[in-house]
Amino acid sequence: MKKVGVAILGLGTVGGGTYRIITEHREFYQKTQDIDLDVECVLELNKDRIAALGVPAEKVAANIAEVVSNPNVDIVVEMIGGIGVARTFVQAALNAGKSVVTSNKELIAKYSYELEHIARRKNCGLYYEASCVGGVPIIRTLLDGLQANCILSMMGIVNGTTNYILDKMTNEGASYEEVLKQAQALGYAELDPTSDVEGFDSTYKLSILSSMAFHTKIPYTKIYREGITTISQEDIAYGKELGYVIKLLAIGKNTPSGIEVRVHPTYVRDNHPLASVNDAFNAVYITGDAVDDVMLYGRGAGDLPTGSAVVSDVIFAATHSDIKYSTFKNTANADKQTKFVTNFSSAYYLRMTVNDKVGTLGKIATIFARQNVSIGEMIQKDCDENGNVTLIFITHETKEQSIKTAVSKIASLENVCKVDSLLRVVS
Amino acid sequence: MKKVGVAILGLGTVGGGTYRIITEHREFYQKTQDIDLDVECVLELNKDRIAALGVPAEKVAANIAEVVSNPNVDIVVEMIGGIGVARTFVQAALNAGKSVVTSNKELIAKYSYELEHIARRKNCGLYYEASCVGGVPIIRTLLDGLQANCILSMMGIVNGTTNYILDKMTNEGASYEEVLKQAQALGYAELDPTSDVEGFDSTYKLSILSSMAFHTKIPYTKIYREGITTISQEDIAYGKELGYVIKLLAIGKNTPSGIEVRVHPTYVRDNHPLASVNDAFNAVYITGDAVDDVMLYGRGAGDLPTGSAVVSDVIFAATHSDIKYSTFKNTANADKQTKFVTNFSSAYYLRMTVNDKVGTLGKIATIFARQNVSIGEMIQKDCDENGNVTLIFITHETKEQSIKTAVSKIASLENVCKVDSLLRVVS
Repeated sequence: MKKVGVAILGLGTVGGGTYRIITEHREFYQKTQDIDLDVECVLELNKDRIAALGVPAEKVAANIAEVVSNPNVDIVVEMIGGIGVARTFVQAALNAGKSVVTSNKELIAKYSYELEHIARRKNCGLYYEASCVGGVPIIRTLLDGLQANCILSMMGIVNGTTNYILDKMTNEGASYEEVLKQAQALGYAELDPTSDVEGFDSTYKLSILSSMAFHTKIPYTKIYREGITTISQEDIAYGKELGYVIKLLAIGKNTPSGIEVRVHPTYVRDNHPLASVNDAFNAVYITGDAVDDVMLYGRGAGDLPTGSAVVSDVIFAATHSDIKYSTFKNTANADKQTKFVTNFSSAYYLRMTVNDKVGTLGKIATIFARQNVSIGEMIQKDCDENGNVTLIFITHETKEQSIKTAVSKIASLENVCKVDSLLRVVS
Repeated sequence: MKKVGVAILGLGTVGGGTYRIITEHREFYQKTQDIDLDVECVLELNKDRIAALGVPAEKVAANIAEVVSNPNVDIVVEMIGGIGVARTFVQAALNAGKSVVTSNKELIAKYSYELEHIARRKNCGLYYEASCVGGVPIIRTLLDGLQANCILSMMGIVNGTTNYILDKMTNEGASYEEVLKQAQALGYAELDPTSDVEGFDSTYKLSILSSMAFHTKIPYTKIYREGITTISQEDIAYGKELGYVIKLLAIGKNTPSGIEVRVHPTYVRDNHPLASVNDAFNAVYITGDAVDDVMLYGRGAGDLPTGSAVVSDVIFAATHSDIKYSTFKNTANADKQTKFVTNFSSAYYLRMTVNDKVGTLGKIATIFARQNVSIGEMIQKDCDENGNVTLIFITHETKEQSIKTAVSKIASLENVCKVDSLLRVVS
């Protein structure tokens, strides 16, 4: 039976989960995968973590040089995170001819080309299933399950923290600030939540997944991004009334005029499969030209769920000797040719506060008409104590530029107090 | 660029879809997969099908011998169905050293061992992603995406016809007979619907998927089976009231006491992800010991969706030269050791009609208590014109034998007119 030695760099949440899965399943993989998979060594400075997992002292490496020069290490698992030492260590491992498995989305979104270049040169593999959507095998599915398709679009709930926050705001009626505090107390959100709540984390994942789905390099910097910090209880409540829930979606589309990539809070029709992805669960909804609609759903984070993706990559690397690269083929120059669409089409939800004066609605309607924005639904809410009314519009599909021009013109109308919110809509 | 020649046996719905996908994506696969994939020949007796697809005359083979002796054929796609010529042709292709891709669930459920034995001997591959859940890459996911896990359970809606029928019965209030007629008129159900509505089709798929998930041979004959023909509007309506929808589930569990496999209509809690799988869609809900819950959702049938699975297998076979078998490893004798649990545990829904007489409920409760059946919920409905009342019970988890004994004793009580239905419940 083939012996496969693994080195784990970093024993944090996912590193610890990975350690546990490999050690606890050794006999199981001998039986089911015909390999003897074992942790050869770990690299971790925090002694408490080493003790908590019961890692034998002789398996604790002193430094990265010791790891990459160890002939019994076949695969290096990078679980450090960030783009500092993680990048250096992954380079070192690949340069030593070791295949690498990582859960580091920022590293892959920013440096996959550089790292894959080394992997190709050294004839070893680079795998990162765990970088996107936790334990859900979305990358394997794109590479080996749906590869007969030209993928037309993907829409994903790929960040558990924001989905948890939106879910609690929706179901418990709490404000964004309250729920964020709860989430931080529970460890679901970082003390500095910017990367999650402003959508950066989702752009890294969308960059990786859309690059793979559309067979071209999609830099995360090309992705339009809006976070969830301005989502209000009003918009959640009106959504319920109109049959929508608000989700932070990462959307990629492969259109005849180019690639469209964006991350923003979205009204999702409540009978859409993505609408019932609750709590910290994640899901990706993919449309292919042959398969039509497919959805993958599961836990987007956590020690064992994400560890499942890591160890599945490890087993794949160990058992499939002829597959060296986990990403797309033949795309050396694709990034230079790729066209990006920024003036995309969508339906929109618009909420505004206006003075209840004769003629206001007519002026708004005229602006919409001039911008070719067609209204699908409109609601007017009762006058408040200041004589203001709330107007809500759901538009038919229209261009981003048209709606933004319309909004800026409407905002400057005399009797319009404020355009409170603008959200994109998916049916 | 590697040339890959495909032979398609049978140009029915899925065979035709496969032909279209391969011919229409030739340039796309050259770019994205680095292979020149082409249909080398087809075997089909029906001239109309050949004409409809525009297959050139020189690509129409005269017989199977011509196909398997053609040195340009690398992969044979079997889309004939059934276990007659399909079996002989697959044997012939494998014996000639050609890898085979098939969508034939009955063939694989009944003869996978025999066929894999030939494939192993001849060092070629046998792939059957398309045999289960249409275009959803469930087999690839079990083999290469979740293989780090010991799979604990799977619950699937794996038959589109029955899901369509139950969906229409639920949403349009029509009877089973009415909806079946509609489904037959639309081509969603066969003229002889037995295989679908009695659950045989689901047992073939569960046999294939659970064998793979649990790394042992699970003959379809070991699967407990109940169809949907006796589902009534009453049970659907009471389900709605109690917060459940009825789905035909294929359930496999890997328990400490053995393997549990069953296909039956089930009350599924309406907030469960499987509850919102509507129309002819399919889904499989998998629980692994590391990944926790994962669900895959998509179209379970159709020319292009199922063709997507076929062609993805073809590309996998063409590009991954070291992977010869699509199924489990090291299970030569597994089937002899496998223990099956038939007295499984479940929660149950019980509906009965009783005479509205003092003491009846007490007698029923006594029978439940003696069989160790604990009641979670009970509803009594108003008296009808005959002085009969409907009693509905939802039990806590209990043993199949206990509930069946209880039902038979209750049915023989003096004031019990009838035990109308017994359904298993999933929360």
